[in-house]
Formats: sequence, C-alpha cells, structure tokens
Amino acid sequence: MDTLSKIAKEVQEETKVRLHRRNVERLIKAVLTTGDFWKIVDLSDLPVPAAAGIVKRLIKEGVLFINDKEDILLTQKGHDLVAELGISPVVDYSCSACEGRGYPFYADKELYRTFVELAKDRPKAIRDYDQGAVTPETTVARVLFIDSRGDLEGRDIIVMGAEDDLTGLAVALTRKARRVLVIDIDERLIEFDKRIFKELGIDNAEAMVWDLRNPFPEEMLGKFDVFITDPPETFAAFRAFIGRGIATLKEEGCAGYFGLTLRDSSIFRWKEFQETLINEYGTVITDIVQDFNHYMNWEYHPETRAAQIAPVRRQPKDIWYRSAWYRIETLPNFKRWNEPISDEVFYLDEEGSTT
Amino acid sequence: MDTLSKIAKEVQEETKVRLHRRNVERLIKAVLTTGDFWKIVDLSDLPVPAAAGIVKRLIKEGVLFINDKEDILLTQKGHDLVAELGISPVVDYSCSACEGRGYPFYADKELYRTFVELAKDRPKAIRDYDQGAVTPETTVARVLFIDSRGDLEGRDIIVMGAEDDLTGLAVALTRKARRVLVIDIDERLIEFDKRIFKELGIDNAEAMVWDLRNPFPEEMLGKFDVFITDPPETFAAFRAFIGRGIATLKEEGCAGYFGLTLRDSSIFRWKEFQETLINEYGTVITDIVQDFNHYMNWEYHPETRAAQIAPVRRQPKDIWYRSAWYRIETLPNFKRWNEPISDEVFYLDEEGSTT
Repeated sequence: MDTLSKIAKEVQEETKVRLHRRNVERLIKAVLTTGDFWKIVDLSDLPVPAAAGIVKRLIKEGVLFINDKEDILLTQKGHDLVAELGISPVVDYSCSACEGRGYPFYADKELYRTFVELAKDRPKAIRDYDQGAVTPETTVARVLFIDSRGDLEGRDIIVMGAEDDLTGLAVALTRKARRVLVIDIDERLIEFDKRIFKELGIDNAEAMVWDLRNPFPEEMLGKFDVFITDPPETFAAFRAFIGRGIATLKEEGCAGYFGLTLRDSSIFRWKEFQETLINEYGTVITDIVQDFNHYMNWEYHPETRAAQIAPVRRQPKDIWYRSAWYRIETLPNFKRWNEPISDEVFYLDEEGSTT
Repeated sequence: MDTLSKIAKEVQEETKVRLHRRNVERLIKAVLTTGDFWKIVDLSDLPVPAAAGIVKRLIKEGVLFINDKEDILLTQKGHDLVAELGISPVVDYSCSACEGRGYPFYADKELYRTFVELAKDRPKAIRDYDQGAVTPETTVARVLFIDSRGDLEGRDIIVMGAEDDLTGLAVALTRKARRVLVIDIDERLIEFDKRIFKELGIDNAEAMVWDLRNPFPEEMLGKFDVFITDPPETFAAFRAFIGRGIATLKEEGCAGYFGLTLRDSSIFRWKEFQETLINEYGTVITDIVQDFNHYMNWEYHPETRAAQIAPVRRQPKDIWYRSAWYRIETLPNFKRWNEPISDEVFYLDEEGSTT
C-alpha cells in the first residue's frame, strides 16, 4: 500500500471519517498553497476532524511541521514526496466579479444596500443552534439565483431553520413572492424579522418559532412552491430540514434550495444524501454550485470541537467555511417525509465539528 | 383538471415526452420574455419536441398566436390566463463577466487567444455524429474549471467523443496535464488535433479514432485520473460515453466531466441519469452548473428534426442551445461499465431532436 493510502486508512480508523488516498493528496495540495490550517480545511474539501487527523499524521510521518507562527509547512521529506507524486498547488480561476457563484450580489444594488443596513442589527450567532451566518453577499446572491430560476415572483415560499442568514428577510424585501413564511427555532431571529416586516409594511411575510425536530402539522404540508434551508450535515438534520422542506411543496415541478458543505461531512456522506434525494424522496438535482455560500466566522469558534481538535491554536482570520448551493425539483410521486426526529445526534456526529 | 395540467397531459400523449403542468407554465413564462421560438426552448428548459408541442397546443387553445414575423405572442385570452395564474417574465441576474459559469474565459487570456487562433481552421460540424461545437469561451472556461478543481496539473486525462468542441486540444495546450488522450469517431478532428500537437511539439498528447459504441480494450481501463465528454442525451449514448468514461478511471477520488442538456432530454430523464450515476456506477455528483455550455448554431440545423417540428420556419439567430456542466467523483467500489452498445437509438429518441 502506498504512503497516501496508508495515511488515509489510519486517519479513517482514528477519526471514523471515511477517506481515500486522494483526500490526503488534496490536503497536501492545500498545504502547498497556504500554511493556515483553516484555509487548508477549505481547500481540501474535508471535514475538520479528517483534515486535523491527516495533518497530525503527516507531522508524525515527518512530512509536515508547524512553525512558531503556527503555519503548517512541508519538511524536506514532504517536498521530496510532493516531487515524487507530482503534486502541485491549488489554482483558482473563479470569477472575481460574482465570487464564483455565477450570480453577482451587485446585480440588485438596492436590495443589497437595504439588506446590509437592516442586517447590521441582526442577533449575534449563538452556539445552541449551530448558527454561523453567511455573508450579506451570499444571502443576496441566493435571492437573485432563486429569482433567475423562476422561483421567487408570485411564489409561496417557506424559509426554514436557517434565519441567522436572514435569507427569509431578503426574500421578503424583494416583495416579489406571493407569500413568505419564515420559521426558526431562535425566537430572537423571528422577533427581528417580525419587527422589520411590520416597520416596512411587508404584509405578505410571516415569521414563526418552530423546532424542525417536530413534524409539521397537516396544514403546512403541500402548501408552498419553494423551500429554502441550510441544515447541519447530520442525517437526522438532513431529514428534518430537507425531507420536511419537500413535504411542504405543492406538486411536481416545485423547487427546494439548501446548502451542503464538505467541511462538516465527507464526500461519502454526500453520496448518501444524494441517494436519499433521488431514490427515497423522488426529487431530481438541478444545480450544485460549489463554494456558493461563504460563512462569516462565529464568535463561539474557540468553544467548538473544530477548534479543539485543530493542530493549531490560531483562530481563523479569513472566510474558510463554505458550502455548495443545491437546487432540487420534485417529480411525480415525490415523497413528503415528515416523521418526528428521535435521533439525539442532530447537530454533531463524527464528521461534524463546527457546532 | 386545470388548463396547464390538461395541456401537459395532451402534449405528453402526443410527443411521448414526459411533462407536468409547471413545464407548461415555464413555457408561457418564456413567451412573456421573448417571441423567438428557439429562445423560448432555451428559457423553458424543455426538449424541442415538448416545447413545439406545447406551443402548437396553446395556439389551438387560443392562448398563443404567431405573427407575420414568426414571433410567438400571447392572445388576449393568453394575457387573461397569465394574469389569472400570476405568471411573470423570466429575469436573469447571471454574471456578465463569466457568463454565469463562475469561471471567466479571460482568466487565462493567453490560452484563450491561442485557442481562438487555432480553432479558426477547425473542421465544420457535421450531422453524422451529432456535432455542434460549444463557443471558444465555453471550451476555455471548461479547462479553467477543471484546473481549479485540481483535475488538470499532472493528471492523465482522456477526452472522449466530443472533440468538435476541441476540449482535448485546449487541455493539451495548457501543457499542464501529464498525459492527454483524445478519442473521437471523426477522423477529421483527430487529424486536426494530431497536426497541431505535432506542430507545437506537444508530445504528451495523442489523438485516436474511436467509436464509443465499441467497448474499450483492457489496456484503456483504469488508466486515467480524469475523463471529459459531452454525450448525446439518449440512454445508450449516456452509457457509452459516461459509463465507459468511468471505466477508464484509476481509483476512487477520480473525476469525470460532461455536459447534459434539457433541450434534448426531459427533467424526468435527468433523474434516471442521476440514478444511474449514483446507484449503478457508484459515483457522487459534485457540481451541476446550469447553462455552462453554450453551443454555436450548426449549419445542418434546417435538416434536423428540431427544425422540422418547430412551429416556425425562422432559424435560430442567437445561441439557444445550452447545457449544464456536471462533475462526478468515483467512490470505493465504483463500477467500470464497458458493454457493447447494441441499441440502435444512439443519437436520437423521442426527447432528442437536434441531430
């Protein structure tokens, strides 16, 4: 077995995150590009426990070392390995205008400006609910993406359980939807939205406290054209957010939007999510835009498992947590999943660490 | 049953293309945006036979009419229906810098310039092989996308059966891959590439005539890090191009790239393609970027079934045929599909029409 496969196997045994040799190769590629651990996680597209485990293992093997500034660097042995395997740094040709999303936030400057002004007083992200908001540019780009797909104007839209991003607020601000219902477990966010809806006279938008672990009542099912959400990447949360999101949709041809990251779930788990979407829920995936969602750093980061298992004490300075933007569509005989969640593992499991 | 569902059902019975009511709604949305039939197909995300069938049906119902310039327009009854259902025109906030791809072609101007100079003498698209090349901006953006994903530098790459796009040539021009193998059924394209490889001294790139209906010989299997292709949207071609592409990959964590359109296949069929990728081939989808690939109009258009079933005689003037750009990754136990194709229906079936 070659070096990279051996390391993948060992770190998998230790962390329980599934890995293959190219995951290790990709992490080395990231180290060639940046010494910052959090940027390495970002560029590796790996769950934090896996990236941390690989870095520690490669240090033990004498391939990497950490200098006094807490930069992660290659040793001479590391450079030899890189030359032998022909590994090169990451290149990035993504568009600086739209930040690689394909939809630039400034395509509606007025919406962006209004949103930024309102969002400045937003409630702070708290750890209890796995919060960590996306940048205002992300939120506005989401709305423009959704509008460009025909899923905003005249639609009944539910925004579920990720209102720390204020996506529901941004959708409502366009005044294009027929109806907007925002639900979140965090009363502070619901009160925030309610106050703004009232102040601005947006009377087709409502906000309501709701814990997505509970099934929706009958009157919520089959009532919306579009759902938008951003779940934690556990299986339980995937069902609670996305299964239930699909349950709110009216008929075939309706759409769902959500973020899924590789920072808190492996590519192996992504496949299982896709199996669920296609085989069990009867939906089709129409879009996956990598690194669409950029998350601002959250104050509670030092308390997270991610910070504790990291090979460095240094905090993230820049954006390092990003997720892909999925769009799905319902097809005939799609399934309305709406069971109670008994699973204890809602926010965190072996692949997750940022809660 | 409401009007749109009734029309979807009738057109489905007539054309055999699966449809739901929101497909009809989307077509009306497109008619509110443009009178040009080919742009309507583009904006509807529908196979040409379905779009043509819906337009003809809506004319019969008195909802649409065609004026003497061959513009498709709403009648008064149509306007009443639009008002009743709250249908609005298509909006488009996609990025003008990168043409919505997230990767602008001009991020490597030298590659773009060289490619354009070389491509000006390319063999003309011919009907025999379902040809119709993408724009040079598309080809170059594909290469920059692939490079940004770590799938170019130092990689063994096979470019399969779509060399009318000259993607293999563009990949080779970067001189970043370790090895490039271009295969295509069209000898003109293979000779074209071979001549340029020789003239420019690109000695790590080869080109070879190959008919993808035939299985690959043993020595081609498991030999590449990356495959790139652009199949016709029949099930037989999907297997021949993508199943065989996966068969050439070395191990887990390798990548495949291909275009899939909704102009020659329905969203129902997309779900079946996704089932095949995930359940049968054991791959995971990492990217789907809608409208990434822009196809130039092809001279043989008037001879195609698309032109014959269109409700207008007017030719497409502008780009109307676009496809999504998929990236998949192999996971452990992925399947190397490599059967002979006995299916007669390789280029064309009930949903396809542009060959």
